[in-house]
Amino acid sequence: MTERLFDSAGAWWDLPAGPANSIADVPGVTVGHLTHRSQTARTGVTAILPHDGDLFRNPVPAGVAVLNGFGKSAGLMQLAELGRIETPILLTNTFGVAACTTALIRRAIAQNPEIGRGRPTVNPLVLECNDGRVSDIQALAVTEAMAEEAISAAGAEVAQGTVGAGTGMRTFGFAGAIGSASRRVALPSGRTHTLAALVLSNFGRPGDLRLLGERIETPEAGRADPQDKGSVIIVYATDAPLDSRQLTRVARRAGAALGRLGSYWGDQSGDVAIAFSTANRLDIDSEADAIERLAEARIDPFLHAAVEAAEEAVLNGLWHASPVSGYDGLRLPVLRDQLLS
Amino acid sequence: MTERLFDSAGAWWDLPAGPANSIADVPGVTVGHLTHRSQTARTGVTAILPHDGDLFRNPVPAGVAVLNGFGKSAGLMQLAELGRIETPILLTNTFGVAACTTALIRRAIAQNPEIGRGRPTVNPLVLECNDGRVSDIQALAVTEAMAEEAISAAGAEVAQGTVGAGTGMRTFGFAGAIGSASRRVALPSGRTHTLAALVLSNFGRPGDLRLLGERIETPEAGRADPQDKGSVIIVYATDAPLDSRQLTRVARRAGAALGRLGSYWGDQSGDVAIAFSTANRLDIDSEADAIERLAEARIDPFLHAAVEAAEEAVLNGLWHASPVSGYDGLRLPVLRDQLLS
Amino acid sequence: MTERLFDSAGAWWDLPAGPANSIADVPGVTVGHLTHRSQTARTGVTAILPHDGDLFRNPVPAGVAVLNGFGKSAGLMQLAELGRIETPILLTNTFGVAACTTALIRRAIAQNPEIGRGRPTVNPLVLECNDGRVSDIQALAVTEAMAEEAISAAGAEVAQGTVGAGTGMRTFGFAGAIGSASRRVALPSGRTHTLAALVLSNFGRPGDLRLLGERIETPEAGRADPQDKGSVIIVYATDAPLDSRQLTRVARRAGAALGRLGSYWGDQSGDVAIAFSTANRLDIDSEADAIERLAEARIDPFLHAAVEAAEEAVLNGLWHASPVSGYDGLRLPVLRDQLLS
Amino acid sequence: MTERLFDSAGAWWDLPAGPANSIADVPGVTVGHLTHRSQTARTGVTAILPHDGDLFRNPVPAGVAVLNGFGKSAGLMQLAELGRIETPILLTNTFGVAACTTALIRRAIAQNPEIGRGRPTVNPLVLECNDGRVSDIQALAVTEAMAEEAISAAGAEVAQGTVGAGTGMRTFGFAGAIGSASRRVALPSGRTHTLAALVLSNFGRPGDLRLLGERIETPEAGRADPQDKGSVIIVYATDAPLDSRQLTRVARRAGAALGRLGSYWGDQSGDVAIAFSTANRLDIDSEADAIERLAEARIDPFLHAAVEAAEEAVLNGLWHASPVSGYDGLRLPVLRDQLLS
Repeated sequence: MTERLFDSAGAWWDLPAGPANSIADVPGVTVGHLTHRSQTARTGVTAILPHDGDLFRNPVPAGVAVLNGFGKSAGLMQLAELGRIETPILLTNTFGVAACTTALIRRAIAQNPEIGRGRPTVNPLVLECNDGRVSDIQALAVTEAMAEEAISAAGAEVAQGTVGAGTGMRTFGFAGAIGSASRRVALPSGRTHTLAALVLSNFGRPGDLRLLGERIETPEAGRADPQDKGSVIIVYATDAPLDSRQLTRVARRAGAALGRLGSYWGDQSGDVAIAFSTANRLDIDSEADAIERLAEARIDPFLHAAVEAAEEAVLNGLWHASPVSGYDGLRLPVLRDQLLS
Repeated sequence: MTERLFDSAGAWWDLPAGPANSIADVPGVTVGHLTHRSQTARTGVTAILPHDGDLFRNPVPAGVAVLNGFGKSAGLMQLAELGRIETPILLTNTFGVAACTTALIRRAIAQNPEIGRGRPTVNPLVLECNDGRVSDIQALAVTEAMAEEAISAAGAEVAQGTVGAGTGMRTFGFAGAIGSASRRVALPSGRTHTLAALVLSNFGRPGDLRLLGERIETPEAGRADPQDKGSVIIVYATDAPLDSRQLTRVARRAGAALGRLGSYWGDQSGDVAIAFSTANRLDIDSEADAIERLAEARIDPFLHAAVEAAEEAVLNGLWHASPVSGYDGLRLPVLRDQLLS
Repeated sequence: MTERLFDSAGAWWDLPAGPANSIADVPGVTVGHLTHRSQTARTGVTAILPHDGDLFRNPVPAGVAVLNGFGKSAGLMQLAELGRIETPILLTNTFGVAACTTALIRRAIAQNPEIGRGRPTVNPLVLECNDGRVSDIQALAVTEAMAEEAISAAGAEVAQGTVGAGTGMRTFGFAGAIGSASRRVALPSGRTHTLAALVLSNFGRPGDLRLLGERIETPEAGRADPQDKGSVIIVYATDAPLDSRQLTRVARRAGAALGRLGSYWGDQSGDVAIAFSTANRLDIDSEADAIERLAEARIDPFLHAAVEAAEEAVLNGLWHASPVSGYDGLRLPVLRDQLLS
Repeated sequence: MTERLFDSAGAWWDLPAGPANSIADVPGVTVGHLTHRSQTARTGVTAILPHDGDLFRNPVPAGVAVLNGFGKSAGLMQLAELGRIETPILLTNTFGVAACTTALIRRAIAQNPEIGRGRPTVNPLVLECNDGRVSDIQALAVTEAMAEEAISAAGAEVAQGTVGAGTGMRTFGFAGAIGSASRRVALPSGRTHTLAALVLSNFGRPGDLRLLGERIETPEAGRADPQDKGSVIIVYATDAPLDSRQLTRVARRAGAALGRLGSYWGDQSGDVAIAFSTANRLDIDSEADAIERLAEARIDPFLHAAVEAAEEAVLNGLWHASPVSGYDGLRLPVLRDQLLS
């Protein structure tokens, strides 16, 4: 995974990837999946943990960008107000948000029994896409236990493709997926940082994909539902000392990446990006914090990195996907077969 | 209820109330409560139905204003994007959002089996305040069945006080509550419209309440937790033909009402307002709609009405409240006793 | 000025004022006025300087809240994006924005000749209210020279009332004004900070003013134009280490203060608040800055202070106002006469 | 101009262009340029008139999207609040905003002498990019007279390239420009509408341009200043009956177009889009308007059209550009030469 699947002698990308070319290149960030396949369900949960400590007591600075608000994610209003993330980030299907929310509440209470008693309540962060094309979303198959398992499974190895929340997703008519990529940014002083993306990719009209600028046809099987009625969630992580306003600027750049991939941010596609930094853990009991913050004049390469990381994350997800057969017979082809055929 | 409890010869209010002085003055709007009291719980659900039809097929135009985003409401991102409400509006406690969300999903699917299949998914709208001071919020006592019962109970009679979602709320140290009020606006042509508010009121530091401008002391019992760490939800309804942008302007005015009441929009208070109009039902299957829209130059009195309705709704809720004894012994006094003593 | 004009034994205010009870209580902040009266003009410019250094090279963190966007202020979009202020803040009348903008550009270039050459352009910050009721705004009377003079006049003494940009303003039918007030906030550790407001006050329907909760009638002379068609600009300064997101939260609280004063944020009233902190000067040439930031859990009293400071600033401005005779004969009474009569 | 310069047998674009492939395909919309070249200046003004009537009395519905707020445009706050445009739209350089603002104020007053007297003030709409690389922006060369001339020159013929406000602009290191393009959208009923874009294009790092997906090298001459420190303004017009919220959704899609072209929305690039509809002229003196509004379910192809129109508008502008020699010797090459060489 350290090689780049989608490159052609540096003609498209400008910035180097990290060693794993995934969100795990940001030290301390871990990812876990729970994949659920049954007769009617092809769904799951993916968990991203900004660090291995108690996120309620030590939240991380964060920002959010709603590119197109046709979506049902939980926790974004408070994230925008307070500029921080205080639970693991869960990705799942649209009707699984409630179960994942409850799982995060119970987990936070177990760690901090004063939540909702002496302390304020906790803000669960759950983002979603609709996998209803291949999974019977009306079955409400996602459970609290699945959310817990995804969190428990979190580690530095990031599985990609039709896994976890990406199990039943569709992108430009192809199967999947969960994808990830990272970029390294060198500052003038010589210090370097990583900015990485993990995406839950479920967007794009069949036939609209641009792969490094080349338009890619979707096989007949993937063209059953020709509209862009999916969604995409982009989660950025960085070890650079960005504050919540700067992270919001980073998150917004996911929009440029979607454009490069061929999307026009379709009406019914809930396109949402969040970004967090691991550089300054907050302490909810301190009075004031001495922190480091990147100067605004140095943010430009991080914006550049955000576009490249999100674009390649989507492509990596598609590359690692396996074919998907829907509960009602719809079959999603995989991009790799299309490219290798 | 047609009299005004809080008036002193017109010195404070400028606009007339409707016949019920509640949100039911907007034709077609109904309200239902489910009150749940157990050994540890004093909580519930309140449902507001913009009309008695199928809201998924015939949504109503709406807007939202986040005055302070320290809250966990569901459905606001899509409401802001599409400018419409497509389910009943449910009010409940912070950790009851997930159960209410699921109830709304199941109800919408029952009415429209193509949701998440041929149609997009539905956007459940659930707003919340934290009743954890008197109710054991960690028990997650709110259930899907309670949400369904609140919806089923909806009618034109609007019970106020410590009822439904207002059962365990606290306002400026007093018990409660659900409150409502309405205002009539006459346009130059002679036509008149109603703009009304229903509030779930759980905000304000003890001792900060201003009642028609007079600062009101809170009895000792209500001063146990001296900070403003509640929340308030304001739901506006009108039969005036306002579009979603105009309704957003209306919703924002709830902030002025909170100021008049003595609040400073405390850090941990999730203060959120939504507004909807019943004048133009949308049809998700039409191509284009012929609608009527109020001219911007005529919106001023509706902004005025929004402030008065929200201010009086909070006061009406406090007036109708009953004393509350918390699961851990905290006892909330009622404003009426304080005023009549 | 150290006494409080509007108090009644602590019944209304909770927080102590600083020694000058003005924005000058924030160390380093200075204010200057240019008052312009001619046959047809009653207008002017007011300048606020966050510090006495080069603001382009050493901007201050800042936030903005647009309560009602019916206004023509300059510089707010970039302030929101970058979270900083890089010129003096100028207040003037609606059609004076262009002249003030140009004055700020020329001043910045004089100090930094590389602006628009090696460096980016500068973002002039000019906020406005419409003084057209008593001043012939069509005359475009404000000039670049007036803006320069206001900046040159800046000092720690803050004149209030019908002065500078407040010369031709009207508030609830009364004359004026520029007003200011401050509040002291003590943190648990014992350290204290100041949060102060300076307002350009031109809002409110005649007869709507609430003075410490009491509704105040406006004399006949002030009721000529009965609508709320003004505007109000609130500028907050603090020496507490708040970042731009936190300053945005502070700025929003101006809305509660307007409500307490009796405003409903009228349709045609451009109600805008900005807030800046002097605690961390930025350096546009650094790579990263070590800064101090207040913990979110300690922000609550600053929100409280923001409401009190803005509310009292408006009242102080009205108290210091002198009667105004408009170019077309309209005469604005002063609140002091009304209260003392 | 009816042919498409940048197409390759339909492989890239999906939607048909209108007859002029410019913003003039929207009936009633006109464009005028004033080009100003002197020893030190290469600058100008471009005017877009939504209709030939009195825009103050008959504004058009509009929306705005700030993709990156590093910019100094005037009028956007009120546009967002009221959802309408009430003056011609002027494009110019960053330090020309003040002169253009004043010209719009004087023009509106001449047509409506009651502005700022009986009526509210007018909201001038001026958008800008920084042409300081080739024009001495410190000279403040743009005058009110130039703005008036641009407006007077408005017609249905849309000159593109290094003309008007585009005279001194730079895009991916190439000269220019003003560009335009249009798309036709057919609804299921058979009715068709046009959505078109006009861009003031001054963005993109040299070497980042993607032309229909192919990365284009910038000649040595254009690589003098390697960063993305420009800006881009996208103006959308349509004759489809979209309201201001829907137009905001359209405007946002400019971000996807910038991504397709190779931009990452650089830190110092003020990327702003506005959109207006000519379908429903508002009347500031009416009480309520009967209007037609497109159903949300039909908006998807307009979002698609917005991406294609903005992308091709940038390319058309570059294609029509002439070489530019800067006041300090910098020479900007033209894309056409690069492609034809």
